[in-house]
Amino acid sequence: MKQLKEGHLKSERLYKGTLLGLRKDTVKLPSGKKATREIVEHPGAVAIVAITDDNELVLVRQFRTPTKQVLLEIPAGVPLKKESAIAASRRELEEETGFRAKKVRKIFEGYATPGYSDEVIQFCLAQDLVLAKPKPDEDEFLEVDLVDIDTCVDLLKTGKIHDIKTMLGIMIADMVVRGEL
Amino acid sequence: MKQLKEGHLKSERLYKGTLLGLRKDTVKLPSGKKATREIVEHPGAVAIVAITDDNELVLVRQFRTPTKQVLLEIPAGVPLKKESAIAASRRELEEETGFRAKKVRKIFEGYATPGYSDEVIQFCLAQDLVLAKPKPDEDEFLEVDLVDIDTCVDLLKTGKIHDIKTMLGIMIADMVVRGEL
Repeated sequence: MKQLKEGHLKSERLYKGTLLGLRKDTVKLPSGKKATREIVEHPGAVAIVAITDDNELVLVRQFRTPTKQVLLEIPAGVPLKKESAIAASRRELEEETGFRAKKVRKIFEGYATPGYSDEVIQFCLAQDLVLAKPKPDEDEFLEVDLVDIDTCVDLLKTGKIHDIKTMLGIMIADMVVRGEL
Repeated sequence: MKQLKEGHLKSERLYKGTLLGLRKDTVKLPSGKKATREIVEHPGAVAIVAITDDNELVLVRQFRTPTKQVLLEIPAGVPLKKESAIAASRRELEEETGFRAKKVRKIFEGYATPGYSDEVIQFCLAQDLVLAKPKPDEDEFLEVDLVDIDTCVDLLKTGKIHDIKTMLGIMIADMVVRGEL
């Protein structure tokens, strides 16, 4: 493998906020030249692929300020301090949708946008669902939708899903119900 | 559908950089209360699912500063001003990998992280590939890998892919070669 690694020279703090941070790193390229990188700091998230006994995917509709629209998404959220992905998935799923999951396991984890952010999203599969009462955060306004997984795949193929983690979540759900994952 | 939409009250500019911007919006929630949202502004990107005649996926290895590691990814990049997703995909694919694609079509588009960013990634499928000479940007250091799509699916299932757009890209490639997309 040829030399790909950059060397870190310095970091400049640009912003530190409630959820996000922003810094500018100066790095030394493999060629020896210098370059700068703008980097978003994010604590990481969980995304929950929750499948009912009837092979429906649990989805939420919510207004997303940056996109100026209501999006249909799999439930997701930011883990609390020291909270595991599994525990965070259980908590977020119940808060946002009212579903308690008896079976939760981690499926994948990956960087959301590794070109400029350190955010890792951990995808968990939640099954054996029991409906309790949703308890969204005070500033969270959600609507829950149960959609048959074949219908979700059709929505995906026809371009009606506009969130990338949800596209991946639908493909995970499809693999799970087909016994491939 | 219950009221989900937020009203925009004001925006505060926090940063305007080379690639990224950052602002803080104050919004009015459906309940009437106020809340603030930190929003990353990004020009958008293309991600290229490039499949050879031998059903291999074209992947690139590159060091990603925010992740502090070399990641295996599908080619991707930011379109030039007024450049279409198709044209940007052709250009980025050739620059990063040397492959010229005779057939390119858009498959999906979606928000990368709609909770805090306006970045849309457009996924394009590139086929009928002819190998020319890669011409990476001056500050881009890449290694190209051709990986059989079945092997890519195995890498995905065993947790060896660490980039979400690449996970989705592999699933798109798998659907394409199975004639499902």
